[in-house]
Amino acid sequence: MERLVAALAELPGLGPRSAQRIAFHVLRASEGEVEALMKALGDFKAKIRFCSSCGNLTAQDPCPVCRDPSRDRTLICVVEEPKDVLALEATGAYRGLYHVIMGHLAPLDGVNPEDLRIQELLDRVRRERPREVIIATGSDADGETTALYLARVLKPLTSKVTRIAAGVPVGSSLDFVDPATLTKALEGRRDVA
Amino acid sequence: MERLVAALAELPGLGPRSAQRIAFHVLRASEGEVEALMKALGDFKAKIRFCSSCGNLTAQDPCPVCRDPSRDRTLICVVEEPKDVLALEATGAYRGLYHVIMGHLAPLDGVNPEDLRIQELLDRVRRERPREVIIATGSDADGETTALYLARVLKPLTSKVTRIAAGVPVGSSLDFVDPATLTKALEGRRDVA
Repeated sequence: MERLVAALAELPGLGPRSAQRIAFHVLRASEGEVEALMKALGDFKAKIRFCSSCGNLTAQDPCPVCRDPSRDRTLICVVEEPKDVLALEATGAYRGLYHVIMGHLAPLDGVNPEDLRIQELLDRVRRERPREVIIATGSDADGETTALYLARVLKPLTSKVTRIAAGVPVGSSLDFVDPATLTKALEGRRDVA
Repeated sequence: MERLVAALAELPGLGPRSAQRIAFHVLRASEGEVEALMKALGDFKAKIRFCSSCGNLTAQDPCPVCRDPSRDRTLICVVEEPKDVLALEATGAYRGLYHVIMGHLAPLDGVNPEDLRIQELLDRVRRERPREVIIATGSDADGETTALYLARVLKPLTSKVTRIAAGVPVGSSLDFVDPATLTKALEGRRDVA
Protein backbone atom coordinates (compact mmCIF):
# COMPACT_ATOMS: atom_id res chain seq x y z
CA MET A 1 0.00 0.00 0.00
CA GLU A 2 2.81 2.38 0.86
CA ARG A 3 4.37 1.83 -2.55
CA LEU A 4 1.08 2.52 -4.38
CA VAL A 5 0.43 5.66 -2.31
CA ALA A 6 3.97 6.91 -2.93
CA ALA A 7 3.64 6.27 -6.68
CA LEU A 8 0.25 7.99 -6.87
CA ALA A 9 1.43 10.94 -4.79
CA GLU A 10 4.05 11.64 -7.47
CA LEU A 11 1.30 12.50 -9.96
CA PRO A 12 0.59 16.21 -10.53
CA GLY A 13 -2.29 17.48 -8.41
CA LEU A 14 -2.24 14.54 -6.03
CA GLY A 15 -0.89 14.80 -2.49
CA PRO A 16 -0.40 11.96 0.03
CA ARG A 17 -4.00 12.26 1.29
CA SER A 18 -5.67 12.04 -2.11
CA ALA A 19 -3.24 9.25 -3.04
CA GLN A 20 -4.38 7.33 0.04
CA ARG A 21 -8.02 7.93 -0.85
CA ILE A 22 -7.42 6.47 -4.31
CA ALA A 23 -5.58 3.49 -2.79
CA PHE A 24 -8.58 2.70 -0.55
CA HIS A 25 -10.89 3.10 -3.54
CA VAL A 26 -8.76 0.56 -5.45
CA LEU A 27 -9.07 -1.89 -2.51
CA ARG A 28 -12.87 -1.69 -2.69
CA ALA A 29 -13.05 -1.76 -6.50
CA SER A 30 -13.59 -5.00 -8.42
CA GLU A 31 -10.73 -6.87 -10.11
CA GLY A 32 -12.26 -5.90 -13.47
CA GLU A 33 -12.27 -2.19 -12.71
CA VAL A 34 -8.65 -2.23 -11.59
CA GLU A 35 -7.61 -4.22 -14.65
CA ALA A 36 -9.42 -1.75 -16.93
CA LEU A 37 -7.52 1.12 -15.31
CA MET A 38 -4.19 -0.72 -15.61
CA LYS A 39 -4.88 -1.52 -19.25
CA ALA A 40 -5.87 2.09 -19.98
CA LEU A 41 -2.64 3.31 -18.40
CA GLY A 42 -0.50 0.74 -20.23
CA ASP A 43 -2.21 1.30 -23.59
CA PHE A 44 -1.91 5.05 -23.24
CA LYS A 45 1.78 4.83 -22.41
CA ALA A 46 2.44 2.26 -25.14
CA LYS A 47 0.43 3.88 -27.93
CA ILE A 48 0.36 7.63 -27.44
CA ARG A 49 3.24 9.49 -29.05
CA PHE A 50 4.02 13.06 -29.89
CA CYS A 51 3.43 13.93 -33.54
CA SER A 52 6.85 14.33 -35.18
CA SER A 53 5.56 17.29 -37.16
CA CYS A 54 3.40 19.39 -34.82
CA GLY A 55 4.15 17.88 -31.40
CA ASN A 56 0.52 17.09 -30.63
CA LEU A 57 -0.43 13.86 -28.83
CA THR A 58 -1.36 11.08 -31.21
CA ALA A 59 -1.64 7.32 -31.52
CA GLN A 60 -0.33 7.48 -35.08
CA ASP A 61 2.49 9.62 -36.40
CA PRO A 62 1.86 12.09 -38.02
CA CYS A 63 -1.23 13.03 -36.01
CA PRO A 64 -4.77 13.11 -37.47
CA VAL A 65 -4.66 16.91 -37.91
CA CYS A 66 -1.36 16.82 -39.82
CA ARG A 67 -2.65 13.91 -41.92
CA ASP A 68 -6.04 15.46 -42.72
CA PRO A 69 -5.94 16.60 -46.37
CA SER A 70 -8.82 19.04 -45.78
CA ARG A 71 -6.78 21.17 -43.34
CA ASP A 72 -5.23 24.41 -44.56
CA ARG A 73 -1.50 23.60 -44.61
CA THR A 74 -0.50 27.24 -45.09
CA LEU A 75 -1.63 28.19 -41.59
CA ILE A 76 0.32 27.19 -38.44
CA CYS A 77 -1.10 27.95 -35.00
CA VAL A 78 1.53 27.87 -32.23
CA VAL A 79 0.26 26.69 -28.83
CA GLU A 80 1.88 25.84 -25.52
CA GLU A 81 0.41 22.40 -24.78
CA PRO A 82 -1.48 19.53 -26.44
CA LYS A 83 -4.51 20.50 -24.30
CA ASP A 84 -4.57 23.85 -26.13
CA VAL A 85 -4.97 21.93 -29.40
CA LEU A 86 -8.00 20.21 -27.86
CA ALA A 87 -9.42 23.60 -26.79
CA LEU A 88 -8.98 25.09 -30.28
CA GLU A 89 -10.32 21.96 -32.00
CA ALA A 90 -13.41 22.21 -29.76
CA THR A 91 -14.23 25.56 -31.37
CA GLY A 92 -14.50 23.99 -34.84
CA ALA A 93 -13.39 27.41 -36.08
CA TYR A 94 -9.78 26.60 -36.96
CA ARG A 95 -8.88 24.63 -40.09
CA GLY A 96 -5.10 25.03 -40.21
CA LEU A 97 -2.25 23.05 -38.64
CA TYR A 98 -0.67 23.35 -35.18
CA HIS A 99 2.73 23.52 -33.61
CA VAL A 100 2.97 22.58 -29.91
CA ILE A 101 6.04 24.07 -28.24
CA MET A 102 5.53 22.01 -25.04
CA GLY A 103 5.40 24.76 -22.45
CA HIS A 104 6.23 28.42 -22.19
CA LEU A 105 9.34 30.46 -21.52
CA ALA A 106 10.00 30.93 -17.82
CA PRO A 107 13.62 32.06 -17.46
CA LEU A 108 13.31 32.30 -13.67
CA ASP A 109 12.32 28.63 -13.56
CA GLY A 110 15.08 27.76 -16.00
CA VAL A 111 12.84 27.27 -19.05
CA ASN A 112 14.68 28.83 -22.00
CA PRO A 113 13.96 28.75 -25.75
CA GLU A 114 16.16 25.67 -26.25
CA ASP A 115 13.98 23.75 -23.74
CA LEU A 116 10.91 24.20 -25.96
CA ARG A 117 10.14 23.01 -29.49
CA ILE A 118 10.99 26.43 -30.89
CA GLN A 119 13.93 25.42 -33.09
CA GLU A 120 11.62 22.78 -34.62
CA LEU A 121 9.08 25.56 -35.29
CA LEU A 122 11.63 27.80 -36.99
CA ASP A 123 12.92 24.91 -39.11
CA ARG A 124 9.36 24.02 -40.05
CA VAL A 125 8.46 27.59 -41.02
CA ARG A 126 11.63 27.83 -43.16
CA ARG A 127 10.76 24.51 -44.81
CA GLU A 128 6.96 24.75 -45.20
CA ARG A 129 6.69 28.52 -45.83
CA PRO A 130 3.19 28.97 -44.32
CA ARG A 131 1.28 32.09 -45.36
CA GLU A 132 0.51 32.88 -41.67
CA VAL A 133 1.79 31.84 -38.25
CA ILE A 134 -0.73 32.47 -35.45
CA ILE A 135 0.74 32.80 -31.95
CA ALA A 136 -1.83 31.31 -29.59
CA THR A 137 0.07 31.10 -26.31
CA GLY A 138 -1.84 32.05 -23.13
CA SER A 139 -2.69 35.60 -22.04
CA ASP A 140 -0.89 35.15 -18.71
CA ALA A 141 2.55 36.66 -18.11
CA ASP A 142 4.54 33.60 -19.27
CA GLY A 143 2.31 33.19 -22.34
CA GLU A 144 2.79 36.85 -23.29
CA THR A 145 6.57 36.65 -22.77
CA THR A 146 6.65 33.57 -24.98
CA ALA A 147 4.50 35.32 -27.60
CA LEU A 148 6.86 38.30 -27.71
CA TYR A 149 9.87 36.01 -28.12
CA LEU A 150 8.17 33.95 -30.84
CA ALA A 151 7.12 37.09 -32.72
CA ARG A 152 10.72 38.32 -32.68
CA VAL A 153 12.25 35.08 -34.01
CA LEU A 154 9.44 34.36 -36.50
CA LYS A 155 9.24 37.82 -38.09
CA PRO A 156 12.43 37.45 -40.17
CA LEU A 157 11.25 34.09 -41.53
CA THR A 158 7.68 34.73 -42.64
CA SER A 159 5.61 37.63 -43.86
CA LYS A 160 2.57 37.27 -41.61
CA VAL A 161 2.74 36.61 -37.86
CA THR A 162 -0.44 37.20 -35.86
CA ARG A 163 -1.47 37.01 -32.20
CA ILE A 164 -4.91 35.86 -31.05
CA ALA A 165 -7.02 38.60 -29.47
CA ALA A 166 -7.05 39.37 -25.78
CA GLY A 167 -10.28 40.98 -24.62
CA VAL A 168 -13.67 40.61 -23.03
CA PRO A 169 -14.73 36.93 -22.91
CA VAL A 170 -17.94 36.10 -24.75
CA GLY A 171 -20.99 36.37 -22.49
CA SER A 172 -19.45 38.91 -20.14
CA SER A 173 -20.58 42.42 -19.33
CA LEU A 174 -17.89 45.07 -18.98
CA ASP A 175 -18.06 45.45 -15.22
CA PHE A 176 -17.22 41.77 -14.68
CA VAL A 177 -13.91 42.21 -16.47
CA ASP A 178 -10.61 43.11 -14.76
CA PRO A 179 -8.90 46.40 -15.67
CA ALA A 180 -5.97 44.70 -17.46
CA THR A 181 -8.36 42.82 -19.77
CA LEU A 182 -10.46 45.95 -20.39
CA THR A 183 -7.29 47.83 -21.31
CA LYS A 184 -6.41 45.09 -23.83
CA ALA A 185 -9.97 45.13 -25.16
CA LEU A 186 -9.72 48.89 -25.75
CA GLU A 187 -6.26 48.66 -27.33
CA GLY A 188 -7.45 45.82 -29.55
CA ARG A 189 -10.59 47.54 -30.79
CA ARG A 190 -11.35 47.08 -34.47
CA ASP A 191 -13.25 48.91 -37.15
CA VAL A 192 -16.77 47.58 -37.49
CA ALA A 193 -17.74 46.43 -40.95
CA MET B 1 -40.94 46.89 11.27
CA GLU B 2 -43.22 45.42 8.63
CA ARG B 3 -43.09 48.66 6.67
CA LEU B 4 -39.28 48.81 6.77
CA VAL B 5 -38.96 45.15 5.74
CA ALA B 6 -41.43 45.68 2.88
CA ALA B 7 -39.54 48.79 1.69
CA LEU B 8 -36.16 47.03 1.86
CA ALA B 9 -37.50 43.92 0.14
CA GLU B 10 -38.34 46.09 -2.89
CA LEU B 11 -34.63 46.73 -3.47
CA PRO B 12 -32.93 44.65 -6.16
CA GLY B 13 -31.15 41.60 -4.77
CA LEU B 14 -32.96 41.71 -1.44
CA GLY B 15 -35.70 39.25 -0.54
CA PRO B 16 -37.94 39.27 2.56
CA ARG B 17 -35.37 37.31 4.59
CA SER B 18 -32.42 39.57 3.89
CA ALA B 19 -34.67 42.59 4.41
CA GLN B 20 -35.57 41.24 7.84
CA ARG B 21 -31.90 40.65 8.63
CA ILE B 22 -31.13 44.28 7.77
CA ALA B 23 -34.07 45.47 9.88
CA PHE B 24 -32.73 43.58 12.91
CA HIS B 25 -29.28 45.00 12.24
CA VAL B 26 -30.78 48.51 12.24
CA LEU B 27 -32.42 47.81 15.61
CA ARG B 28 -29.03 46.90 17.11
CA ALA B 29 -27.13 49.73 15.38
CA SER B 30 -26.50 53.08 17.13
CA GLU B 31 -28.60 56.18 16.36
CA GLY B 32 -25.52 57.70 14.72
CA GLU B 33 -25.02 54.79 12.33
CA VAL B 34 -28.64 54.83 11.24
CA GLU B 35 -28.60 58.59 10.75
CA ALA B 36 -25.43 58.30 8.65
CA LEU B 37 -27.15 55.74 6.41
CA MET B 38 -30.30 57.90 6.11
CA LYS B 39 -28.21 60.94 5.26
CA ALA B 40 -26.19 59.01 2.68
CA LEU B 41 -29.42 57.80 1.06
CA GLY B 42 -31.00 61.26 1.11
CA ASP B 43 -27.88 63.04 -0.15
CA PHE B 44 -27.41 60.49 -2.91
CA LYS B 45 -31.00 60.87 -4.06
CA ALA B 46 -30.91 64.66 -3.77
CA LYS B 47 -27.54 65.26 -5.38
CA ILE B 48 -26.81 62.55 -7.91
CA ARG B 49 -28.03 63.33 -11.40
CA PHE B 50 -27.41 61.95 -14.85
CA CYS B 51 -24.98 64.02 -16.90
CA SER B 52 -26.99 65.84 -19.59
CA SER B 53 -24.24 65.21 -22.11
CA CYS B 54 -23.00 61.64 -21.58
CA GLY B 55 -25.63 60.17 -19.24
CA ASN B 56 -23.11 59.19 -16.57
CA LEU B 57 -23.94 59.59 -12.87
CA THR B 58 -22.72 62.86 -11.43
CA ALA B 59 -23.26 65.35 -8.61
CA GLN B 60 -22.65 68.25 -11.00
CA ASP B 61 -23.92 68.59 -14.55
CA PRO B 62 -22.00 68.14 -16.84
CA CYS B 63 -20.09 65.31 -15.17
CA PRO B 64 -16.39 65.50 -14.22
CA VAL B 65 -15.33 63.53 -17.32
CA CYS B 66 -17.25 65.82 -19.71
CA ARG B 67 -15.87 68.90 -17.89
CA ASP B 68 -12.25 67.71 -17.80
CA PRO B 69 -10.32 69.77 -20.39
CA SER B 70 -7.56 67.14 -20.57
CA ARG B 71 -9.91 64.50 -22.00
CA ASP B 72 -9.85 63.80 -25.73
CA ARG B 73 -13.18 65.25 -26.93
CA THR B 74 -12.90 63.62 -30.36
CA LEU B 75 -13.37 60.12 -28.93
CA ILE B 76 -16.75 58.84 -27.66
CA CYS B 77 -16.99 55.44 -25.97
CA VAL B 78 -20.54 54.05 -25.90
CA VAL B 79 -21.36 51.91 -22.85
CA GLU B 80 -24.51 50.33 -21.47
CA GLU B 81 -24.47 51.52 -17.85
CA PRO B 82 -22.79 54.06 -15.54
CA LYS B 83 -21.01 51.14 -13.84
CA ASP B 84 -19.26 50.43 -17.17
CA VAL B 85 -17.85 53.97 -17.04
CA LEU B 86 -16.43 53.13 -13.62
CA ALA B 87 -14.90 49.92 -15.00
CA LEU B 88 -13.26 51.73 -17.92
CA GLU B 89 -12.07 54.61 -15.74
CA ALA B 90 -10.46 52.03 -13.42
CA THR B 91 -8.18 50.99 -16.29
CA GLY B 92 -6.70 54.49 -16.56
CA ALA B 93 -6.20 53.60 -20.24
CA TYR B 94 -9.04 55.63 -21.74
CA ARG B 95 -8.81 59.41 -22.11
CA GLY B 96 -11.85 60.18 -24.27
CA LEU B 97 -15.49 60.90 -23.41
CA TYR B 98 -18.40 58.49 -22.81
CA HIS B 99 -21.99 58.03 -23.83
CA VAL B 100 -24.16 55.88 -21.54
CA ILE B 101 -27.18 54.46 -23.36
CA MET B 102 -28.76 53.18 -20.11
CA GLY B 103 -29.20 49.52 -20.91
CA HIS B 104 -29.12 47.29 -23.95
CA LEU B 105 -31.55 46.31 -26.66
CA ALA B 106 -33.75 43.38 -25.65
CA PRO B 107 -36.72 43.31 -28.04
CA LEU B 108 -38.19 40.23 -26.35
CA ASP B 109 -38.31 42.14 -23.07
CA GLY B 110 -39.71 45.19 -24.85
CA VAL B 111 -36.48 47.24 -24.79
CA ASN B 112 -36.25 48.93 -28.18
CA PRO B 113 -33.91 51.66 -29.51
CA GLU B 114 -36.30 54.43 -28.45
CA ASP B 115 -36.10 53.20 -24.84
CA LEU B 116 -32.35 53.84 -24.73
CA ARG B 117 -30.32 57.05 -25.07
CA ILE B 118 -29.53 56.21 -28.69
CA GLN B 119 -31.22 59.21 -30.35
CA GLU B 120 -29.20 61.41 -27.97
CA LEU B 121 -26.06 59.59 -29.15
CA LEU B 122 -26.86 60.12 -32.83
CA ASP B 123 -27.67 63.81 -32.24
CA ARG B 124 -24.43 64.19 -30.31
CA VAL B 125 -22.33 62.51 -33.01
CA ARG B 126 -23.93 64.75 -35.67
CA ARG B 127 -23.22 67.81 -33.54
CA GLU B 128 -19.77 67.04 -32.08
CA ARG B 129 -18.31 65.14 -35.08
CA PRO B 130 -15.96 62.87 -33.06
CA ARG B 131 -13.08 61.27 -34.96
CA GLU B 132 -13.99 57.84 -33.52
CA VAL B 133 -16.93 56.22 -31.77
CA ILE B 134 -15.98 53.11 -29.76
CA ILE B 135 -18.79 50.63 -29.11
CA ALA B 136 -18.10 49.13 -25.69
CA THR B 137 -21.31 47.26 -24.93
CA GLY B 138 -20.96 43.83 -23.28
CA SER B 139 -19.90 40.65 -25.05
CA ASP B 140 -23.10 38.85 -24.03
CA ALA B 141 -25.93 38.30 -26.54
CA ASP B 142 -27.80 41.54 -25.70
CA GLY B 143 -24.58 43.55 -25.74
CA GLU B 144 -23.64 42.14 -29.16
CA THR B 145 -27.13 42.79 -30.57
CA THR B 146 -26.90 46.35 -29.31
CA ALA B 147 -23.40 46.74 -30.79
CA LEU B 148 -24.62 45.57 -34.21
CA TYR B 149 -27.53 48.00 -34.10
CA LEU B 150 -25.31 50.89 -32.99
CA ALA B 151 -22.77 50.14 -35.72
CA ARG B 152 -25.52 50.24 -38.33
CA VAL B 153 -26.99 53.59 -37.24
CA LEU B 154 -23.61 55.22 -36.50
CA LYS B 155 -21.84 54.24 -39.73
CA PRO B 156 -23.65 56.81 -41.93
CA LEU B 157 -22.84 59.61 -39.45
CA THR B 158 -19.13 59.19 -38.75
CA SER B 159 -16.09 57.81 -40.52
CA LYS B 160 -14.67 55.60 -37.78
CA VAL B 161 -16.74 53.23 -35.65
CA THR B 162 -14.86 50.59 -33.65
CA ARG B 163 -15.76 47.71 -31.35
CA ILE B 164 -13.68 46.71 -28.32
CA ALA B 165 -11.97 43.32 -28.66
CA ALA B 166 -13.50 40.07 -27.51
CA GLY B 167 -10.92 37.43 -26.67
CA VAL B 168 -8.92 35.62 -24.06
CA PRO B 169 -8.98 37.52 -20.73
CA VAL B 170 -5.59 38.64 -19.43
CA GLY B 171 -4.02 36.03 -17.15
CA SER B 172 -5.81 33.09 -18.72
CA SER B 173 -4.37 30.06 -20.45
CA LEU B 174 -6.17 28.83 -23.55
CA ASP B 175 -7.72 25.73 -22.04
CA PHE B 176 -9.61 27.78 -19.42
CA VAL B 177 -11.44 29.67 -22.14
CA ASP B 178 -14.81 28.63 -23.60
CA PRO B 179 -15.02 27.73 -27.31
CA ALA B 180 -17.06 30.83 -28.23
CA THR B 181 -14.41 33.13 -26.74
CA LEU B 182 -11.58 31.17 -28.39
CA THR B 183 -13.37 31.49 -31.71
CA LYS B 184 -13.58 35.27 -31.23
CA ALA B 185 -9.93 35.38 -30.17
CA LEU B 186 -8.95 33.57 -33.39
CA GLU B 187 -11.18 35.75 -35.57
CA GLY B 188 -9.82 38.88 -33.91
CA ARG B 189 -6.15 37.97 -34.28
CA ARG B 190 -3.87 40.83 -35.26
CA ASP B 191 -0.55 41.27 -36.96
CA VAL B 192 2.27 41.48 -34.45
CA ALA B 193 4.45 44.56 -34.72
